[in-house]
Amino acid sequence: VTTGAQQCMDLACKVLCNEGDTVITESPSFIGSLNCFRSYNVNLVGVEMEEDGMDIAKLESAIRSNKNVRFIYTIPNFQNPTGITMSLAKREAVYALAKKYGVLILEDNPYGDLRFRGESIPAVKSLDKDGLVIYAGSFSKILSTGMRVGYLVAPAELMGKLVVAKQCTDVHTSMLPQLMCLRFLTECDIGAHLESIKGIYAHKCLLMLAEMDARFPKSVRYTRPDGGIFLWATMPDGIDSNEFATRLVRERKVCVVPGTAFLIDPEAPSSAFRLNFSGSGDEQIVQGITHTAALLHEVCPG
Amino acid sequence: VTTGAQQCMDLACKVLCNEGDTVITESPSFIGSLNCFRSYNVNLVGVEMEEDGMDIAKLESAIRSNKNVRFIYTIPNFQNPTGITMSLAKREAVYALAKKYGVLILEDNPYGDLRFRGESIPAVKSLDKDGLVIYAGSFSKILSTGMRVGYLVAPAELMGKLVVAKQCTDVHTSMLPQLMCLRFLTECDIGAHLESIKGIYAHKCLLMLAEMDARFPKSVRYTRPDGGIFLWATMPDGIDSNEFATRLVRERKVCVVPGTAFLIDPEAPSSAFRLNFSGSGDEQIVQGITHTAALLHEVCPG
Repeated sequence: VTTGAQQCMDLACKVLCNEGDTVITESPSFIGSLNCFRSYNVNLVGVEMEEDGMDIAKLESAIRSNKNVRFIYTIPNFQNPTGITMSLAKREAVYALAKKYGVLILEDNPYGDLRFRGESIPAVKSLDKDGLVIYAGSFSKILSTGMRVGYLVAPAELMGKLVVAKQCTDVHTSMLPQLMCLRFLTECDIGAHLESIKGIYAHKCLLMLAEMDARFPKSVRYTRPDGGIFLWATMPDGIDSNEFATRLVRERKVCVVPGTAFLIDPEAPSSAFRLNFSGSGDEQIVQGITHTAALLHEVCPG
Repeated sequence: VTTGAQQCMDLACKVLCNEGDTVITESPSFIGSLNCFRSYNVNLVGVEMEEDGMDIAKLESAIRSNKNVRFIYTIPNFQNPTGITMSLAKREAVYALAKKYGVLILEDNPYGDLRFRGESIPAVKSLDKDGLVIYAGSFSKILSTGMRVGYLVAPAELMGKLVVAKQCTDVHTSMLPQLMCLRFLTECDIGAHLESIKGIYAHKCLLMLAEMDARFPKSVRYTRPDGGIFLWATMPDGIDSNEFATRLVRERKVCVVPGTAFLIDPEAPSSAFRLNFSGSGDEQIVQGITHTAALLHEVCPG
């Protein structure tokens, strides 16, 4: 049990990475994990995302062309920030590459229980016959973010070291939130709870997408996730997402996260931005997309 | 606010230490902190403890003879494992050396509120006019260990980096235990609570000392702390504390922690062991010391 899933990334680095070792991540990826990896002074290498997950040829090339690759970091379901889900074929391909090159996989799955349409795809960990996958899970997105209760599942030979790293880091995770999770899992109907929140998120996501379909300029592309809490919109090349996000919050009080926050090289340009549909009511979603669309029409050519 | 005071040590290392940098600690010192420092691959240098804290001449020599000394780690009150409290003169001397050599101090004070006799001595942090001291506090020893709520006070120019390190590590500390601490501090009488637990610990400590005075062989020396939860006993040179502790738990079901656990070099010999008086009832204390004394009479010469 970890202090949120975030701690899984920290413990994995603490156990596996020396300065200069390589960590391969999806690009873009979650800023919290990227910053965690950066804090260990690793060589952070990004692999471009396609509609069904990482570009597998580029992943193999990244493994081959970098020294001391310790693990491949992936958020396979409804990825943060893109909302993309990795296909089963790609999960098998990533696992096969990990096995071929003797590299571990760090599978971060905070959103997997929030699928509101389509069929669940097996976790990469479910393919793990060779002790290659560390799986990070969380109660933050299904019970409460404020509790900070996550967990990891790891090969036995790594678990002893992860436990020592945990003891060095914060001794153990706060007991009361752990007991609350235990109580919920044993005495409440977690399945019914998930159905309930998935219904809520489905509604919000489909509302946001409908508003985007109706209002966004045709030159702006965006993902259509099957779950999770994020959408990823890409403006035409050359439009600066930092500038766009700054104007949007200043002029229209709507907050999106610019794509640069999720890049391996935070100095690289990005014309994309992340939208979140979990925390806002219907009226806010409609207003937010209306304002965002209005500014997009100002800044996007054509 | 940190996930227990333990996280202060982790964040301090994350922000201040590269591999090979030097951290100076009291010797012996708390195993949890030592292991945290070790996890950053620092050069760990111990300075011998006297009855009133570190040997100041040896501390200066350690600072001068090691490269990239990042901080001096001290538990100034009722130290774990020795129960020793650093005198004001030594606190001033440690601070003066830190200033002279441009080294930081990490002051870990989980037990300071548990003084049950004598006068409180000002924290090293209270001397800090130059932004040299990171102070780590905890609710673990005064409200509940299981909550995992600690805190740090740091110079402003370090705080921004410590906050980013905290975000990378576990995002934030669990909210409910934080709210419980807040509620206790604002709506309950923390002063009265401290008086109450200090009374309990004073009684336990003095009972344990009285039993030790009556039963231990004269060749065994031990500290007489004015607070906290630990006592430190030293057997004659050459007696192996690992072997003693192993026999004590196997043959007599009494658990003490052998001194080697608290040494900078865990392979070095130690004839000392740590006793804890906070968790046991009167009857257990008397029985525990009776059994410990009996084995001491077997193994100590004369």
